[in-house]
Amino acid sequence: MAVKKIRTKDKHIVSLAALVSGPGNILYQKEDLIAYDCDGFTIHKHLPKAVVFPKNTEEVAAVVKYCSMNNLPFLARGAGTGLSGGAIPINDEVIISLVKMKKLISVDLENRRAVVEPGFVNLKLTNSIADKGYYYAPDPSSQYCCTIGGNVAENAGGAHCLKYGVTTNHILGLQVVLPNGDITEIGNNGIPDTPGYDLLGLLTGSEGTLGIVTKITVRILKNPEAKQTVLAYFDRVEDGSAAVSDIISAGIVPAALEMMDKTAIEGVEAAAFPVGHPKDIETVLLIEVDGISAGIEDQIAQILAVCTKWNVREVKAAQSEAERARWWANRKTGFGAMGAISPDYLVQDGVIPRSKLPEVLEKINAISRDSGLRIANIFHAGDGNLHPLVLFDSRIPGQTELALEAGSACLQVCADAGGTITGEHGVGIEKREEMRFVFTDEEIAAQTDIRAVFNPENLLNAGKLFPSPGRCAEVKKEMKEMKTAGV
Amino acid sequence: MAVKKIRTKDKHIVSLAALVSGPGNILYQKEDLIAYDCDGFTIHKHLPKAVVFPKNTEEVAAVVKYCSMNNLPFLARGAGTGLSGGAIPINDEVIISLVKMKKLISVDLENRRAVVEPGFVNLKLTNSIADKGYYYAPDPSSQYCCTIGGNVAENAGGAHCLKYGVTTNHILGLQVVLPNGDITEIGNNGIPDTPGYDLLGLLTGSEGTLGIVTKITVRILKNPEAKQTVLAYFDRVEDGSAAVSDIISAGIVPAALEMMDKTAIEGVEAAAFPVGHPKDIETVLLIEVDGISAGIEDQIAQILAVCTKWNVREVKAAQSEAERARWWANRKTGFGAMGAISPDYLVQDGVIPRSKLPEVLEKINAISRDSGLRIANIFHAGDGNLHPLVLFDSRIPGQTELALEAGSACLQVCADAGGTITGEHGVGIEKREEMRFVFTDEEIAAQTDIRAVFNPENLLNAGKLFPSPGRCAEVKKEMKEMKTAGV
Repeated sequence: MAVKKIRTKDKHIVSLAALVSGPGNILYQKEDLIAYDCDGFTIHKHLPKAVVFPKNTEEVAAVVKYCSMNNLPFLARGAGTGLSGGAIPINDEVIISLVKMKKLISVDLENRRAVVEPGFVNLKLTNSIADKGYYYAPDPSSQYCCTIGGNVAENAGGAHCLKYGVTTNHILGLQVVLPNGDITEIGNNGIPDTPGYDLLGLLTGSEGTLGIVTKITVRILKNPEAKQTVLAYFDRVEDGSAAVSDIISAGIVPAALEMMDKTAIEGVEAAAFPVGHPKDIETVLLIEVDGISAGIEDQIAQILAVCTKWNVREVKAAQSEAERARWWANRKTGFGAMGAISPDYLVQDGVIPRSKLPEVLEKINAISRDSGLRIANIFHAGDGNLHPLVLFDSRIPGQTELALEAGSACLQVCADAGGTITGEHGVGIEKREEMRFVFTDEEIAAQTDIRAVFNPENLLNAGKLFPSPGRCAEVKKEMKEMKTAGV
Repeated sequence: MAVKKIRTKDKHIVSLAALVSGPGNILYQKEDLIAYDCDGFTIHKHLPKAVVFPKNTEEVAAVVKYCSMNNLPFLARGAGTGLSGGAIPINDEVIISLVKMKKLISVDLENRRAVVEPGFVNLKLTNSIADKGYYYAPDPSSQYCCTIGGNVAENAGGAHCLKYGVTTNHILGLQVVLPNGDITEIGNNGIPDTPGYDLLGLLTGSEGTLGIVTKITVRILKNPEAKQTVLAYFDRVEDGSAAVSDIISAGIVPAALEMMDKTAIEGVEAAAFPVGHPKDIETVLLIEVDGISAGIEDQIAQILAVCTKWNVREVKAAQSEAERARWWANRKTGFGAMGAISPDYLVQDGVIPRSKLPEVLEKINAISRDSGLRIANIFHAGDGNLHPLVLFDSRIPGQTELALEAGSACLQVCADAGGTITGEHGVGIEKREEMRFVFTDEEIAAQTDIRAVFNPENLLNAGKLFPSPGRCAEVKKEMKEMKTAGV
């Protein structure tokens, strides 16, 4: 940014600017702040007080310490691709943007790990090590722009998490700025069981409520020797679902096992990467297996046999890496593709036991019929992670509310089926009330008590993830009041 | 047990007996309690106040509630095979033994899970589902007698954790009795990313300090189609270590990759399952690969090539399942085998980066020379988890202390090499002070604060895992005192 002068008398803005090496690294005027009023969850918007762009851990710590001492709410933001509103500044927060901390610090092939700054983009890591035959496994659909820091906050998933696990399975160590500004290191570089409590697991997926991650050690994997990808088309959803269950029961763990329904297919075929899916088909499965070359053909043969058993209409294998890449682009831009067939959409993120797929899809269809809104389904079928996409038009009065209700109803169906309300997008502000579908008051209180251990004043990303404040915080508040009262 | 009468006037014993369906389910006389004065860590001994044997969750909850209301310290115990003293009643605890809660509650092959009571023995699970082609992966060496509840408490590992992960990677849900007697359920049946904080990860490996697990949902796996096991003998430790690193670097993830040194070989060959290891060899590797048949031969060929590169003296593949089983028995009874060459031994459990193996082994040799005590090394080389076995004779005054010092020095070497103080045995009472090798005071305080969320009065298994009490507990205590003082 060009050299600028601070054009405000707000003492906090002036102080914060000084903590991040000057006015070029802070935004505070309304026209600049608008871009930060929401993240990928666009239904609620709120302006932050300011946005700062620290360039290293020490600057993050200085900003956090300043906010903490001056009672200013604050939160961290990566690329802003989160889908549950975790980075929306609902309390006029100072946003700490980590996009200038985007270095690949080191790669250690011998011990299979890399160290990155939180603003480093997910896909860049794989691109940086691909020539040496390695990659970073978690692959959210936004991987071309989302940051690894954001992935840690949300415990991001992705299509290949069926075989390779979600972000938490690939994080070996974190440097964290705690809400009081202290800097700490957790994790132990890939050691399977570390002494003490599993703080690495606790921080990963805590949606920016326990601390701000400033350095991340991740596991990197050797590229599989071979992979093969097939598309399978089914005339009945039940058949496609049964094929999913049978593939897993056969002992095959595909690298990915994705499913799209008819409405979703209409969307992706109308968007940037059509691949010629039949227009009249009810269900398509995108199945990828990887591993040692010698084993791939066997697995594909088994998968074809299962598909045949379940009345597949057509099945085809990718004939080239280019074709495979195009199939994945068709799938991975699926959410955005809904823009081609609807002015607005709301994506949900329920999880169900695989065996309940047909019954849950039927209930989601019923929600669609009742609400009068179309619902497309794109999902990670292998691990039962559904993404119902509720299509609506926010210009029609009442439709936004109707879409939110329909989305919530889909999550209730998932919870009732023995599943839960989020598989990879997080709770954020979107699903705070739906937490009650799966947790009792006591269970929520236990979690907010844990938050209070790290974040006792609740200045860091307050109002996210949980419906109500914690007991430990209340104890401390009560005690403070007693002290203030002259005890 | 035969019907018995309570032969004491101690009102707590009488009350506790009533809570566990009568006097047949409680021990309280000294001669009965002696068997419970230690676990697999035999260096410290302390008698419990009593041992109760509840038969279901409700009885556990009733005992916990009683202890909590009457300020009686208490702790849970499985098979008592723990190696760090986690089940030793150092505060005159009431021991809640879970050995009568040993049912296999259900097996769900379609969704790949089983539900067990905490006293269910690890190996029995695999034995119960083997005929259907499934198994339970975590395989501590004590698996023939240790319980899955104990495995959860310690986040137990095992030889096959290199490829398949430790206990925490196989736990899908827990029923837990909290320290106040409330019963809660955590986890979400195998959903990769659950909403809220990762309490399942937090409880697993918390060494019985946060709650008592009364029901466990575990992941079960399909048996690999094929496996092959080889023994490789090296004349130099450095060559064996280099082979370990090279196998992993080649992109092979063996199911297990175990190493024993000369002293360990002497022990296992003198014990129950000798397999004819050469007497003059410095290092043996036990390497197992599993997976799809078609890929196994390729991997074995690669492993042989690596061993040849590093001057292997001899390498041989198991010719039958019986031979493979015997090799594993030789390895798995390795700790006990030390009894054949030494009156006492102390097993340690350090972890180091794989690449530091030769340098760390040399430093452990130096500790052996300095202390005058022999140290055998048996370890999970693939994931850098060392088990130095310090051989001593407790009848010689001062040798126990010398062995403890040597063990601690081994852990310091591991921590200094960028590793840590436990890989699978836990901290317990044994390594409380060594926690300071890897955590600062603040980091320990953050963890004891978390303990205080679940276990505020610290009646449950106090004095384990950490050197000092937590801040949140102190805040509450301070507040209680202020209230008592009439505020």
